[in-house]
Amino acid sequence: MNDLPFDVSPTLLIALPGLRLYALCAVLLVIKMIAVGIYTGVVRSRLKVATNPEDAARFGAQLADTEPPEVARVLRAHRNDLENIPAFLILGLVAVLLGAPSLALKVALIVFTAARVGHSIAYLRSMQPWRSISFGFGMLSMLTVMVLILIRVFA
Amino acid sequence: MNDLPFDVSPTLLIALPGLRLYALCAVLLVIKMIAVGIYTGVVRSRLKVATNPEDAARFGAQLADTEPPEVARVLRAHRNDLENIPAFLILGLVAVLLGAPSLALKVALIVFTAARVGHSIAYLRSMQPWRSISFGFGMLSMLTVMVLILIRVFA
Amino acid sequence: MNDLPFDVSPTLLIALPGLRLYALCAVLLVIKMIAVGIYTGVVRSRLKVATNPEDAARFGAQLADTEPPEVARVLRAHRNDLENIPAFLILGLVAVLLGAPSLALKVALIVFTAARVGHSIAYLRSMQPWRSISFGFGMLSMLTVMVLILIRVFA
Repeated sequence: MNDLPFDVSPTLLIALPGLRLYALCAVLLVIKMIAVGIYTGVVRSRLKVATNPEDAARFGAQLADTEPPEVARVLRAHRNDLENIPAFLILGLVAVLLGAPSLALKVALIVFTAARVGHSIAYLRSMQPWRSISFGFGMLSMLTVMVLILIRVFA
Repeated sequence: MNDLPFDVSPTLLIALPGLRLYALCAVLLVIKMIAVGIYTGVVRSRLKVATNPEDAARFGAQLADTEPPEVARVLRAHRNDLENIPAFLILGLVAVLLGAPSLALKVALIVFTAARVGHSIAYLRSMQPWRSISFGFGMLSMLTVMVLILIRVFA
Repeated sequence: MNDLPFDVSPTLLIALPGLRLYALCAVLLVIKMIAVGIYTGVVRSRLKVATNPEDAARFGAQLADTEPPEVARVLRAHRNDLENIPAFLILGLVAVLLGAPSLALKVALIVFTAARVGHSIAYLRSMQPWRSISFGFGMLSMLTVMVLILIRVFA
């Protein structure tokens, strides 16, 4: 195997175009996703409901067989994150590693991050058509990254 | 820090064995996952039900307290994707980055992608034992990638 | 484009500090997540319930409109994994690729992996406050990795 004749520097890849911006967006998106998760707990404790008997006992909350609508809404917003954010982050990293055209990739990263923040706010505040619009911008960014990947794959 | 004495090319990694095929499979799998997500909306609008009051008002749909069985089925298919596809894509990328044996990795990527497409079709059409069989092939591919990773880690 | 004057070795990146440990933790975490998924099926078959009519027919199980509490608990444990593990694995890989300080990263990888195994056990056995404590250690590890990433991004 033609091993390289030098040690790999820990900073070998940091200069890959878009990697720093990607990393920043990944941190922001995961923080946003965690915030929605924490908000589930906030809404539950405000309504004094718990899903697990051991939590109901511990916090003196009422055990809810089905989630109250306010909690179910936050869970849906969170699930929509799970359906979109990990997939986008994987594709975004692949695009960076493939050396995808840097400007288009950076725009897609920024638009996706902003769109998903907007989506969470719009979902939790029941704001339509803003929820659908922000979802659409997120999806457009995802499709852009896919096209950038396919350009590199078939280049 | 022993920085390399040259700039990193954006195309440094594109020649990593398996990276292009991995990228192609990642795009296909995410498109498939998004298709299942969109299909949820299609089924809801066909049944004229909505989960959010603001959507019920906007589309003149009925607000569903619990999801109709047709919608619940699509949600389960989608959730099964969420349980398997991001995990596989992360492991697959790690295997590529570790320089895992290329042929076995490529077979695992192709089998997983085909199996998950089959799984969605079988789930949405209630086709057993095909749903279980395609799930099993997906799982086998995932285990193969794990073994390939462990071989490199302990090499 | 300033392409490198040599072929990329498949083992170019294996010497990146932390990559091997990261890969090992990724495999362990995905195995753990799959185990929780399989356990859902075990609990369903023990209770002789099924969620899909075609499964109920096949296994002679009762079709459950709503999940029994035992199954719902496993699903919640699994969902908590989905909310945390893929996000952590993406951030962990980004930290490795950015050449994050190796020791802190390795500690975060080990603590997260142990914490998430503990979380699953504590969730399935209804053990509080251990479930919350292990969740908290997982979250702390995730925040550590975020800080390590931000240090490299803004270095």
